[in-house]
Parts: sequence; C-alpha cells; structure tokens
Amino acid sequence: MKKTFLIIFTLAIFGCNNQNETDSLLVSNINELQEAITNSEPGDVITMKNGVWNNSQIKFHATGTQNRPITLRAETPGEVTIEGESVLKISGEHLIVKDLYFKNGYTPDEAVIIFRNSPDSIAYNCRVTRTVIEEFTQLDRHRKDHWVEFYGRNNEMDHCYIAGKSNEGPTIKVYLNDNRHINNYHKIHDNHFGPRPRKGGPKAETMQLGASTTSMTPSYTQVTNNLFEKCNGEVEVISSKSNFNNFSNNVFLESEGSVVTRHGNYANISGNMFLANDNPYVGGIRVINTGHWVTNNYFFGLKGQEFRAALAVMNGIPKSPLNRYNQVTDAVIAHNSWINCEQPIHFSVGVNLDQAEVLPPSEIRSARPKRVIFANNFVYNDKFMSYPIKAYDKIDGIKFKSNLMVSNQTMDSDRNDFKLQSVSEFIGDEMFFAPEYDGELYKGFDFETIDQDIFGHARNEDQNHVGAIIPPIDPTVAKVDFAKYGASWFTPYQGNQDIKTHNVSNSGELIAAIEKANSEDVITLNPGNYLIDKTINLSKELTVNSASEKATIQFNALKLGFLIHPKGILHLENLNIVGTPEQDLFNTLDENMSMAYGIHMNDVSVSNFKSVIDASKSSFADEIIISNSQFDNCKNGFLLDKETDDKGDYNVEFLTITNSTFDNISNEVIDFYRGGYDESTIGGVLHFEENIVTNCGALDTDEILINTRGIINVTMKGNQFKNNKTKLTAVLWGAKGQEPVNNTIVNSGKIKVVENLELKLVY
Amino acid sequence: MKKTFLIIFTLAIFGCNNQNETDSLLVSNINELQEAITNSEPGDVITMKNGVWNNSQIKFHATGTQNRPITLRAETPGEVTIEGESVLKISGEHLIVKDLYFKNGYTPDEAVIIFRNSPDSIAYNCRVTRTVIEEFTQLDRHRKDHWVEFYGRNNEMDHCYIAGKSNEGPTIKVYLNDNRHINNYHKIHDNHFGPRPRKGGPKAETMQLGASTTSMTPSYTQVTNNLFEKCNGEVEVISSKSNFNNFSNNVFLESEGSVVTRHGNYANISGNMFLANDNPYVGGIRVINTGHWVTNNYFFGLKGQEFRAALAVMNGIPKSPLNRYNQVTDAVIAHNSWINCEQPIHFSVGVNLDQAEVLPPSEIRSARPKRVIFANNFVYNDKFMSYPIKAYDKIDGIKFKSNLMVSNQTMDSDRNDFKLQSVSEFIGDEMFFAPEYDGELYKGFDFETIDQDIFGHARNEDQNHVGAIIPPIDPTVAKVDFAKYGASWFTPYQGNQDIKTHNVSNSGELIAAIEKANSEDVITLNPGNYLIDKTINLSKELTVNSASEKATIQFNALKLGFLIHPKGILHLENLNIVGTPEQDLFNTLDENMSMAYGIHMNDVSVSNFKSVIDASKSSFADEIIISNSQFDNCKNGFLLDKETDDKGDYNVEFLTITNSTFDNISNEVIDFYRGGYDESTIGGVLHFEENIVTNCGALDTDEILINTRGIINVTMKGNQFKNNKTKLTAVLWGAKGQEPVNNTIVNSGKIKVVENLELKLVY
Repeated sequence: MKKTFLIIFTLAIFGCNNQNETDSLLVSNINELQEAITNSEPGDVITMKNGVWNNSQIKFHATGTQNRPITLRAETPGEVTIEGESVLKISGEHLIVKDLYFKNGYTPDEAVIIFRNSPDSIAYNCRVTRTVIEEFTQLDRHRKDHWVEFYGRNNEMDHCYIAGKSNEGPTIKVYLNDNRHINNYHKIHDNHFGPRPRKGGPKAETMQLGASTTSMTPSYTQVTNNLFEKCNGEVEVISSKSNFNNFSNNVFLESEGSVVTRHGNYANISGNMFLANDNPYVGGIRVINTGHWVTNNYFFGLKGQEFRAALAVMNGIPKSPLNRYNQVTDAVIAHNSWINCEQPIHFSVGVNLDQAEVLPPSEIRSARPKRVIFANNFVYNDKFMSYPIKAYDKIDGIKFKSNLMVSNQTMDSDRNDFKLQSVSEFIGDEMFFAPEYDGELYKGFDFETIDQDIFGHARNEDQNHVGAIIPPIDPTVAKVDFAKYGASWFTPYQGNQDIKTHNVSNSGELIAAIEKANSEDVITLNPGNYLIDKTINLSKELTVNSASEKATIQFNALKLGFLIHPKGILHLENLNIVGTPEQDLFNTLDENMSMAYGIHMNDVSVSNFKSVIDASKSSFADEIIISNSQFDNCKNGFLLDKETDDKGDYNVEFLTITNSTFDNISNEVIDFYRGGYDESTIGGVLHFEENIVTNCGALDTDEILINTRGIINVTMKGNQFKNNKTKLTAVLWGAKGQEPVNNTIVNSGKIKVVENLELKLVY
Repeated sequence: MKKTFLIIFTLAIFGCNNQNETDSLLVSNINELQEAITNSEPGDVITMKNGVWNNSQIKFHATGTQNRPITLRAETPGEVTIEGESVLKISGEHLIVKDLYFKNGYTPDEAVIIFRNSPDSIAYNCRVTRTVIEEFTQLDRHRKDHWVEFYGRNNEMDHCYIAGKSNEGPTIKVYLNDNRHINNYHKIHDNHFGPRPRKGGPKAETMQLGASTTSMTPSYTQVTNNLFEKCNGEVEVISSKSNFNNFSNNVFLESEGSVVTRHGNYANISGNMFLANDNPYVGGIRVINTGHWVTNNYFFGLKGQEFRAALAVMNGIPKSPLNRYNQVTDAVIAHNSWINCEQPIHFSVGVNLDQAEVLPPSEIRSARPKRVIFANNFVYNDKFMSYPIKAYDKIDGIKFKSNLMVSNQTMDSDRNDFKLQSVSEFIGDEMFFAPEYDGELYKGFDFETIDQDIFGHARNEDQNHVGAIIPPIDPTVAKVDFAKYGASWFTPYQGNQDIKTHNVSNSGELIAAIEKANSEDVITLNPGNYLIDKTINLSKELTVNSASEKATIQFNALKLGFLIHPKGILHLENLNIVGTPEQDLFNTLDENMSMAYGIHMNDVSVSNFKSVIDASKSSFADEIIISNSQFDNCKNGFLLDKETDDKGDYNVEFLTITNSTFDNISNEVIDFYRGGYDESTIGGVLHFEENIVTNCGALDTDEILINTRGIINVTMKGNQFKNNKTKLTAVLWGAKGQEPVNNTIVNSGKIKVVENLELKLVY
C-alpha cells in the first residue's frame, strides 16, 4: 500500500469580471477613490485602475444594502497592486472588496485589512474576496501586526490567498472585546493560507480567534473549506480563544502546528484533513477546555508527538488562571480516522508535576481530562505500531466506546479502548481508507448530530461506520485540489522554473554572477583562488560550488564575507573559504531582517575567521545545515545568541552540524540561545552529531563550549571532544529529554545534564 | 409621599383536581407506587392516597410523551405529606409531579427532589408543580444537601412553595457537569421561595446555577415570575455560575442578599423588583464577569451597601483563577429605577489593594469594570441624598449616557453621569414612580432588544422613557400579589393567631405552662420565688415575664437552666434569675440543632451562673438581644465560640447588648468567634453599647475581655470599663471599619485596633 497521496494542481483560471459595468466608476488615485467612496450609494461599483497603488491607506466606509452592496474592486484582477505602506479599512454595511493584490510593502497600521475604521465605525455584513496578501510583512519581525483583523459581525473573507507573514502576530485575528463583535458568525472560507514561515518563537499563529481576556465570549466564527499549506509560524496554526467556533472541512497540508482550542469552549472541529507528507513536525488537533466536539477528522501520516500529536488532549491547571490551561471536560471525540500515524493519540499532554520545583503552583497541570467520550474512532497502520495511545498521566476520565484498530501491533486484544481487527480485512485506496466493520457503534448523547461523514455522506440508522469515512470510497474524489482554494486569478510563485548554472573563473566574474543570477541559480567556480575584496550582499537563494577540485574563496575585506539579507539562502559546496581574524564569514543585516535566511555547507573548509557566523538580534535562519566540513583557526564558530529579549524567540530554527571538524576555535564553537519560557512553543533545534572537536575553547569566558541555554531540542551524539579547554563541553536540559549519546570526551569538559532550567515566564 | 407599599395577600384558593380520573390509579404505599410507576404508560395518572408517607424514597422513572405525560399526584392537594427520611427522584421524559407536601423530615440523599435517578438516568421535559417543601431541613446545619437538584434539560418547577432550609447547601441547584445538562432551558417560575433563615456562614443560597468548575457552560436556565421572600440564608439569594441565564420579572421581598452573577457570563436580569421594607440588609444585583444585561429593574427603599448594594459592580482579579473574580466587561445597565434607596450604585466593589499584606496576589481585585454602559437609568429620592454612586476605585470604564436623577441633593448639575431635575416635576403613586422627562435616550448597540418596560409596555421609537417604567402608571397594578406565587392550595403558617397569657404562681405551674403553651404564648409570673429543680427544654417561642414586681426564678439543678432546642425562642422580661456556679443559664442541644434559636432579655438580673450561655458547636442563634439587664458573679458571660471549623460559619448572627451591666464576670464577658475568610459573606454582628463592665476578667487566660475574632461587624460604643483585669478589653478589625467610639476605660485593658487579620481562606 502506498503512503503517498495525490496533490491535484489545477491551473488557475483567471476570473472574469461579470459585474454589471453600468454602475462602475473608475478611479485612478487615492483621492479619487476616497471621493468615490464618500459619494457611493447602494449598488455602486468602484473600480481601481490597474497599476501600482503605493502607500495607499484606503478607508472604505459606506452603507450598502443586502441586495445592493457597494463594491470596491480591481480593474483587472491582480493588476491592481497595493504596495508600500498601505492599509485597507472597511466599515459600514454590505460592502464587497475583491481582486486586490497586496505585495511589496507592509502596513503602517495594526493590520493590512481591518474590518473597522475606528472603534465606533465597524463593519457588518462586509466581504473581502479573491484578494491576495503576499509577503506584506514588516521590516522587523518583532514589529507586531496582523494581516486581517475582524471586528463587527457577519463579515466574510473568502477565496483569498494569504502567505508569507514572517513577523510577530497572528495572520488573521478576530476581535471580541466589545458586545458589537460577539456572536459574530464571521465566515472565513475557501481561502488558501499559503506558507507562513517558521517564526522562531511564539505569536505566529495563522489564525487567532479572540484572546484569553475575551475567552468567555460567544464568537461563532465559521472557518470552513480552507486550505492551510505549510503554515509553520508556530505550534498553533489556529488558536481558538473564544466559544462556539466552527472549524470544518479544512485541509491542513504539511503545516507544522495544530488546531488548538487554546481558550474558550464548545468548538466544533469536524471533517478536516491533516496531511503530513513525511514532515515530522506536522500537528493535528490539541484540545484544552470544555465541550469541544472533534468528529469526522482524517489524519494521514502524522508523526508529531506531544504538543504536536495528531490528537493531543491536555491536562489542565486546577482552578486555572484565565490565561493558562483549563481542564478538558465534556469533550466528544468521535468518528475520526488516524491512518499511518505514529502513536497519534496523546492524553494528559502537558502534565508537569515534575517541574514543581521551578514553576509556581498555578502552572502545574495536574487536572486530567474528565467526562471525555472517545467513540467510534478508527486507527490504522500498515506496519508495526506500538499502542496508539500515549498517556502522560492516569486515564480515568475518558470513556472509550466502539473504537477500532487495525494494525500489525502488540496491543492485547481485550483492551476496552480499542477493538482489534487484522490487516487483511482492510479496504481502501491510496490515501482514503475505511475498514470492514460490522460491530456496534456507540450512540452517545447528541451523537445523532454527527449526521454526515467527512465526504458529506449521511450517517443514520441505516448507514454508519467507525472512523471519518463511510465506505465505499469514491475513487474519483480529489485529495487536495488546490484550484478550489484562494483567488482563482492568482498562482502562487512556483519557484525558478529555469535554473541556470553560471560558470566563473575569477573574482570579477564571481561577483557579477552573484549579482545577476536569478534565485535558485547555481554558480560554479573553475579551479583557482578567488580573492574577494568586498562584502557580498545576498538576498536570494544561490548555490556556489566548485567545478571539480575545490576552488578557494579568499576574503580580503576588513569586515565581512557575506552580508545576508532577508530571503538570502546560500548553499556552499566543495569549497575552501579563507578569511582574516578580524572578519566574520557571515553576518545578517543589523536591522530589517524581515524574512528568514539560510546557510547550507557541504564539504567546505573554513578557516581563519573571527566567527563563522555572528547573527544579528532580530535575524532568523530557518536552517543552518552543515555537513562534512572543517572549521579551523577561528575565534568563534556559530554565534546565534543575540535574541535576548527573553520572550521565547531565538535566532535559528534548525542548526544541524554533522560529520564536521572544529579545530582551534578559541572561544565558543556554538552559542545558541533562547530566553523566556513558554512551554507551548517547542523550537530551537540543534543536531550536533558525529563531529570531531579539538583544541577549542581556550578563551571561552563562560566556560561552555557548546552553549544551548533554553533551546528545546538538542541532540548531541557520536561526537569526539579532545583537548578542549572549557570547564564544560555542554549543558543539556533533562526535562526536555536531552541526553548525550555515545560521545567521546578526552581531556575536555564534561557534558552536564540539568533537569530543570529556571526561566522567565513569557505570559 | 409615603415610603411604604402595599402587600396584597389573597387567601389561597385550594386547587381542585381537574385531572381526567379515568386513567388514574390510586396507590396506598411505596410498593404499590413503585409498581404503578414501573407499569405506567403515556397518559397515566398515579394518585398517591391521602395520608402520611413516611420514609418514602420514590423513584419516578418513566417515559411519557409531550401530549400524554405521566402524572404523579396527591389524592387531595396537601393531604399527601411526605415525611421522615424521604426523597423523590425523577428520570425519563414528560413526567409531571404535583400537589405533594414535604414536611417534618429531611432527605437521606443529596436532595429532596432530584431530576435524575442515577448519573445515566436523567430527566428531560419533566415538571414538578404545586408542590411544597417546608422545613425539610437536616438535623445538623453542617450536613449539606439541596432541596431541588436539576439535571437534564427542559425540566420545570412552577407554583411551588419552598421555605425553611437551615442547613448547608443552596436550596435549588442546577447541575451542568455533563453535556446532557447544558443548554438546559429549565424553567423555574411562579414559585414562592418563602423565608430561608440566616445560616450564619456561606453556602446558603436560595438558588445556585452551576459552579465555578462549570462556569463556562451554556445553561439558559429561565428563572421568571418568582417571589423570593425573606431569603436570608446568605449574601447571595441567587448565585448564577453559568452562562446565558435569565432572571426576569421576579420579586425580591425583604431578602437579605442579592442576585449575583458570581461566575459565568451573559445573564439577563430584567424586570425584577427589589423591595426592602426598611430592612437594611436587603440587597439587589451584584455584577461580576462579562456581558450581563441589567435592565428594567426596580429597586425600592434599599439601604444595603457594598456587597449588598442595590447595584454592586465588582472589581475583578487580573487573570483571575477560575473560582475567583473575573473582571466586569461589556455589561449593559440600562432603564433601571432606584427609588428612595440610600446611595444605591456601587462601582469597584471588593477592591482590596490595601489587603495585599495578608492576601496572596491572586486575591487582589484590581481590575476595574471596563466597557460598561450605564444608560437611561433613573434615580429618585424624596429626601436629601448624597451622590448616588459610590466608587471604590477610579471610574474609567463606565460609559454614562442619558441617566436622570431627581433628588434634593448636593451633586453638581454638570456631571456627565446624571442629568438633574428638581423634585417638583415628579409624578407617581405610592411605590411606583416615573418622572417627567423629555430628554434624549441613549440608543446603544442592541438597545432595541430592550423592547418592554417592567410592566410589559412596549418600548419603541414612539414611546420610551428613562428608568424601568414608562408613564403613566396604572393605579390598579398590584405591588406584590402573594396569590400569584407558589401552590394555590397552600397557605404558609401565619403565626399564632390566638396568643394566650398563662398566669402562674409556683414552680409546678410554671413548668406545666411552659410545656403546654403554644408558640408565641406569654407566661406571666406572679410575685415570688420559683425554684426550678430540672432543666427546662424549649423548642417553641415563649415570653416569660413578671406580673408586676420582679419574680425570681431560681435554678436548683446541677447542670443547666434552659436547654434550647431548634426554634426555641425565649423572651425574658422583668425577672431575676439566680443559679449556681456549676450550671449554665442557657445551653443548646449538643447535636441536631437543625434550626435557629433566639434569646431576648429586657430588664433581667442574672447572677451566680457558670455561664450566661455556652452554645454548642453547630448551634446558631439568629438573635441574642439583651437590654437593661444585669449580669453578676458569673464565671462567663456569652460563649459563642464553639464553631471552630474555620469555614466561615459562626454561632450567632446578631448579638446585641445595650444599657446593661456586667460585674465580677471572672473570665470572658463575650467570646464570639468566626474562623475562615470568605469576603463575600458578611456576618457576625455584635452591638455592645452603653454598658458598664466592672471587676471582670480576673481569670481570663486569653487576656481579651470581649473577644470577637473574625466577626465582621462590631460596634463598641459608649461603654464604661472599670477595674477589669484583662490585658486588652477588645481587639477590633480596622479593615472592616471597626473602631471604638466614646468608651471610658479606667484601670482596664485598652481597646486595640488591628487593620488586617490573617485568616484561613475558605475557598
């Protein structure tokens, strides 16, 4: 049986303007636009002329009617680009905005699109459709904004494409702090939430509905039929912080986070698909608080654990403060399917009694889930799977009824939580599976309201089934049909479709090639020595390698080799790089590192620099991946320690160094820091494996050769440390499962493991 | 203008059984009853035969239909009395219970009437009507129960009379701890909640809807058109602890507490009347949490302050724990009338920053009300009134709009919170007033939903008005028509309508008269000496006095003068009472003090006892009132200090001693104790005024002559203390406003004032 699944990509069909043109007024600049808005009447269409609308702060305040809304649209979809410092504020009633394209800028306000013009001028029954916001991100990732702020009631966002937010703040935020915004029934549907890059810290949700301070409000926001693709900002893709929200029939594709009922109660999470496509960080649904219904969801190939488990049901804090973790009670988890997931069901996630020594009592999650019904669910794995449930605390508040597990596994057959069947009885196609099953289903209180399966087939007395799908499965059903989502006129950038290789033979050619190359191009150095006497600025993705034997790049500048700009990604392969003790090989911009960068080195020899990298405070690398390389005679190795606000942020997501050598690095080999404790964000990853570190640390004043304070995931395995001068080689964090494995330490400081770190709480 | 108001008491009209008798089955005992229930079918009527049903634990489990319910009823309303250890459990669907009378007993279960038979056998669409529960109270006030427990959905209690619960636990409790009980829409209407005695501590609400642990659940319980008469159990008459509850058109008559939105949000509190009838402890509405609407309420003559203010809007605790105080936000307080109330509107009640030294940070209520709209309200007073608003903190979160105040008062006329009018413009009748007013009304968000006044007159564009009433007022409108409420067949006991005086001349006659007298009778002693050689048991209300000159009652028993039983109330007047140093004048039963007792003395001389009173642990006196009396040569005065569980309970509500003398009381004059701090309960009252205390305290080991630790209200005024031996005369609690006034202290310990007491928290 195959584990892969189809992704159908339909060519975007450009939408055509079928609006009645008779009422349309064409405007060419912001003044004309505002005047047209001021004079608008029900039924009017205001058309923005094609072109770049720079620094446009549009206040769309008008009053349409249900049958005669007022429309603001682009002359041609996608040909009106709103750039620079721009914002669109909408208030009034029955307004429609469509076909706009925000790019190449950022908002000077609190958001890009705001459903109000002022606290007392609010939008009701307004709609934004077929609009794109792409990389409209702040220059500094710590400057907080949102991209769409919902206020009022009955507002709608549909068929939009939203991607590329790198700075702090949820992409979509629904406000509830006023009676005028509650019971809002906002509709967010058929959108394509494209990639949101890893932020390297908290506050990077794709959607946040409410806040802990308004978590008691009824919201009724409807989030349906959206595609969330690679929404990797943080561990919460959606953070539901209000009551009665509905998350149905969405697809979560390779998104490194979960749908989390963070605050508030009685969410409906049904009919969603979670697809990992081998990404181990993809999450599912994390349940906190009371009364949620999790039904008909389909989890395929998920490997996330704990906070990112396919299903995580958390422990709460007894009598929790408003902004922390209430106990899970009265939840219903029924008719879900977990297919080829690794131990997908986690109960009592977040239990932390063992951290009582470093956390205050009001932080201890000891309240187990209670009055939870887990019924009519289906788990399948086509290879060996250990027991599908991981429990971090006693399971005494979950009622298991009529669940089915089909797997080649070791679980006893008489457990009451799952009935077992053998693999052979299985039916299905490549991705969608439903078992043969003729057992009884559990009929719980209100279960008759689960009246459809994930495909909309009726569940009733005559026809029902365990799991999310009632067989037979329609073989023609689309798995993920991208064309269904987002603005039909817009095609997201698909990467460089014509990658070129630029062969160079001297410094001048090299520098010229770097400047003129398109992103993703390759620059290949013929053998020789390339003396570079200026800093190379990099704001695109390039590969630099040697044609055959290793070429040598020798930096002659006083200060710096590469200055990395946002989106600068450099792959170095098969090279020698030589510097001077006064210069760093890599720096990042001191300011305006608006988007992530990356560094990859394979088979590279680096010598004679002050630091290999010394990254600036608010810079963020998605990946720094080093393999088979040598670092000699430098003062420092990798300095990723400037983010010291202690708010949970850090400077690199993945720092991976394998099969490499460090010799005579006189200060620190690695300084990778994260300050501020927020247990729900789980980042900072260091893999340091199979390296040889010798004669390092002679001048290291903090006495730790590889310093990873506050980093959550550290693997230190199979390395050799010889003749290093620091008191300690590394300090690992035991509570996070860090432990040294098979390292050889000779005449060097030991690797110490501390169980708990005392850290500043960030909430 | 009169301040009194009419109470119309209509003679109860006995209901007649108009049930179709053809389906009725008469049952005579519990076995026949249970068999009839087991065999019942839709449309059946099961009739319980008249008589005493003792120790009857009825399990009414059956399934009727909407059109053909199954009914359980009394043969004759009120003639079926359910007594002893009895309980009625109801589960199933479409069941009706009517005309039963619970008295002379108590439940052996968790409640008297329970809308379920077991956790999985629950009532839906069931009704209890025209039923009475009277003094069906536990033998010990610390044995907790409820009288009616609601589970399930759509259950109803109407036209019932419920009175006399003295023990711990709300009278009515709505449970929400399961999805099967939420969104319950229970209807509690047209009931008469008769007197609930003061309990002397917390946990004596008349109604509690939910709990802090389920305060996030939607409840939608409908509490409408009920009369709450003297519901004095504690400071909360109704404790709403869930969401979306409705409290409309109820009358709160002389009830010493408030409707409190203790937990949960979005209550509707509208069209209620609060009538104090000169009782200074009567409360109104106390607001905590988010989104409540308080509209069309009418407050007449209320004098309560702070927690019992006519309107109390509390401060919250930032990020409050689940069981403490959330901030008030998004409340709407509109179209209410406060008539002849003393400073009725209190904002930021409960602020306690000054107690930071004795309370943990999670107890400090510093979060002021926010986004609160206070509009279209009306305040009237026919005499001088200081400013109607008392603010305990800054008022910066209240929006005041179009409020009218009519009063002879000193407030500046240009305040933005109230518009002023002079008294002369006033119109109204004895109790109901509405002013002439032609100013604008505020039209807030959703204010169109306030579409009626308190009498049901339409509010609309053409007709609207400040306050709860749109004039003109119908002069025939009934103020409080008792006949509208409760079971029509039942008339609450109206007291002894034929009070007799029994003249006695010797001990035998005295003892015989005490035994045979009816409650409230008077026993008058001719002059002489009455030597009593046995303990007198008292379980009714009696007055004992002298015909002319003071008679002397001399107790000759070894142990005790009077042994007070529940409901024993003794008025002693114009008497000498002499004992021996081994005996107490008053004791209470050691156990089973199920109801309150009382002692009143005027012009009584007491001498030569061990203690005047030494009350038992779980006893509770509603009042001990002493005036113009002398206490000589006793070891102790008033010992009311045995309730030491430190859960907020205490042994007497009002201890009042005035114009009396204490001479040679060798130990303590008073020991009145309350342990356990719950700031929302406000009891224990000592008035000690104009007394003379001499030569006392010689043997007092705790060195405080008048010990009142933990008692909230202490007045110590105009007393003379001479030649007493204790180190301190008294210790007063400054934070509660206690201070000594005009006391003379000669050769005695001083009166110390401590600001804060360290007390055990009880929640």
